[in-house]
Parts: sequence; C-alpha cells; structure tokens
Amino acid sequence: MTDPDVRNEIMTATYEALCEHGYTDLTAQDIADRTDKSKSLLFYHYDSKEDLVVDFLEYLLEVIDDRVAEIDSLEPAERLSVFVDWFLYGSEGSDQQSFHTAMLELRTQAPYNDRYREQLRRSDDRLRAALEGILEDGIDAGQFVDHDPERTAALLIAAIDGARIRQLTLERDEYLAEVRTALVARIFDELLADDVEFSAERPSTSASKPDRTPDGDRFESDRET
Amino acid sequence: MTDPDVRNEIMTATYEALCEHGYTDLTAQDIADRTDKSKSLLFYHYDSKEDLVVDFLEYLLEVIDDRVAEIDSLEPAERLSVFVDWFLYGSEGSDQQSFHTAMLELRTQAPYNDRYREQLRRSDDRLRAALEGILEDGIDAGQFVDHDPERTAALLIAAIDGARIRQLTLERDEYLAEVRTALVARIFDELLADDVEFSAERPSTSASKPDRTPDGDRFESDRET
Repeated sequence: MTDPDVRNEIMTATYEALCEHGYTDLTAQDIADRTDKSKSLLFYHYDSKEDLVVDFLEYLLEVIDDRVAEIDSLEPAERLSVFVDWFLYGSEGSDQQSFHTAMLELRTQAPYNDRYREQLRRSDDRLRAALEGILEDGIDAGQFVDHDPERTAALLIAAIDGARIRQLTLERDEYLAEVRTALVARIFDELLADDVEFSAERPSTSASKPDRTPDGDRFESDRET
Repeated sequence: MTDPDVRNEIMTATYEALCEHGYTDLTAQDIADRTDKSKSLLFYHYDSKEDLVVDFLEYLLEVIDDRVAEIDSLEPAERLSVFVDWFLYGSEGSDQQSFHTAMLELRTQAPYNDRYREQLRRSDDRLRAALEGILEDGIDAGQFVDHDPERTAALLIAAIDGARIRQLTLERDEYLAEVRTALVARIFDELLADDVEFSAERPSTSASKPDRTPDGDRFESDRET
C-alpha cells in the first residue's frame, strides 16, 4: 500500500461500508462498490478482508493521534474535558451509532484473532498514554491534585467504554449523560485543584471542541470528494 | 416451559454450549447434545434458538437476584465490596472467560434484536437497582457519605463492564486490578465515612465472598448431576 490517496479512498469506503453493513456481513464487494476500483484491484492492495481490517484499525490509530495532537496546546483541564467528551459522545452524526456497533462486532472477534487484538492493544496503549499525559501535565501545572495518573486513566477509559457499550447495546442514551455527570462529581471534582473548574454540563458547542469525531472525521471530510 | 428440572437441564446445557461454541456458532444440536433430550424435544419447549436464548437471559436474571439476596444481611460496605468483585472477576473458572466472550457476542446482537435488548435492559435495571440499594443503605447506615446513588451506580457498572470487556477483548488481565484499585482510591475512599474501610486488595478468599459466580453458580452445581 503506497499511494496515500488510494489508501484514503479505501479507508473511507471501509468506514462507510461498516456503517451500513456492520462488521460480520462486510464483504470486499461492499467496499469496492464505494470506490472507483474493482474488487480484484482491492485485493491487489490487500491480501484478505483481515488485512484490510487490520489496516483500517491502523488508520483509526492515526486518527486518534491527530485528535490528541489537535488539543495539545490547550490547558490540561480543558484537554481532559475535550478528551472525555470525544470518547463518550463522538460526533452527532447518525453514522456514529452504526459505526460503533460495527466496531463492537469487530472487537468481539479479538479473542479469536491475534492480529485484531494486537491492533486494538496498540489503540488502547495510545489512548491510555494520551490520557495519562493529560493527567500528568495537569499535576505538573498545578491544575490537578497529585494522584496516580496510570490508574485514573485506566478507570476513565473503562468507564467511558462501558458507558458507550451499554448505551449502544441497551439503546439507553441516558447512560452517557449519567456517567459523565458521575465522572465530574465523583472523580474530576476530587482531581481538580481548588481554583480549577470542569464543566458539569456537556459543552454543546464549545470553541475548543472540534465538531469532528475521533473516529469519523477523516471520513467525513473525504466523503464528498 | 413448566417443569423446572427440565428447564434447569436445558439452561445448564445452554451455558456449557455457549462456553464451548460461543454465541454465533451455537446450534440447537449443541445444546441437545448436552442433555438427554433430542433436538426435536428441545423445540417442543422452545420455538426457536432466539426463544431459548431469551429464556437463558431470564435465567441469568434470576441468578443475579439470588446473588443479591445472598449478601442482603451483610453490612453495606461489605455488600459493595462483594458486589464489585463478583462483577469484576466472576469466579476463577476457566469457563468464565469463554462464557463472557459468548455473552459479549450475544450483547452485540442486541442493537438488531428487540427481544435480547429487552432482556438485557431488565438485567441492567436489576443490577443498577441492587447497587443503588446498597449505596442507599450505606448512606442510611452512616457508612457512606451522602451522594447521588443513581449516578454512582451507573458509573460503577459502566466502569466494571468496560474493564471486563477490555480485559476480554485485549487479553489484558491487569485491567481488572487497575480499575479495582482506581475505584477504591478515587471513588470508594470518597464515599466511605471516616471510620469505614474498603479493602484495597481483592479479597482472595473472604468468608463473605461466596466462591460461586454471579452467572455460573447454578450451572456449576448442576453440572455433575
């Protein structure tokens, strides 16, 4: 896979096909149909559906890195707020729900698939490192009280992931708001230094909150091209 | 479905078949093979695989109720500890991992299956109500400081569920211990009244912690019969 434009086109097509068909029913044809390439040309770039999905997970990792870099210049408390809201809510797009459902199907394969698991572990490492970095910077800057950033990061990611999966599988949207409120009341209030605040409400349209999604933005921006 | 012994036998067989085959590949034959009944007799009791799975989810709900009732006489702080460890760790059995993987496959179907979703919502209601009850009793007894039990319960369940799913899909066992430690340090320490303690370590064999599992005990005890 050399040409970044070709890869981009295939990744965008994969995202869209996942949203429409889910992971289990995803075929190479579904992806090829969303590009100007034939299915056989797709297999010139990727040996198998698994190969393609592994590269798609790599692509999502790059999206995470982009998003984390985007907020690097903000204050730690604001970075924490933006980070949590990204991963709790994603974007408003209706695609998000179907995309996350497809991703859950894919993740369910990880216990049986070493390559998927390896990629998902790399994402996990990256997410945790990003969150730990925010917490560490906040301690250094005096915005957060001293605590164990590694464990706090593990707890936050577990809580956000669990809330999203419960919201998704139970179709209980209130899970997200409840968990966000509880995170603020039970964790952030304790973490923050006395003179620092964390918004109790989800910022609906904050200037600091890009309205692109952690997973979907590259796709959104490419969709019309 | 009238005879409780017959139902029990079929539920045990379903549990074992789920552990061995997962949810997606589960067939009525796999279940019948683990009973002294034929596949056609199985369909005398259940119209479809879906029907059977819905009743299996109902059965798991009854297991939750049993477990919750079992610890009803303990002090609230101890009930909280036992509850968290049940749902984080389950039992030590190697079946647990494959059972939870199968359950994750099944949950992944919930966005497409109203009946599964309905049952899973009922489990969610029951779990949350049980945890809220523990937190409320703790506030009444002066063991916990005053807080919002509903939101705290939502946060705890999300965090525990998220930790288990990440442990399962990433094969990262450390997630469970990390999240447990963070729950104790970041949430329970704040919840507990000054003179009440919560074990920082997972109680490996506590007298108050039954060594049966929240989901598996009925099956374990029936397995040899």
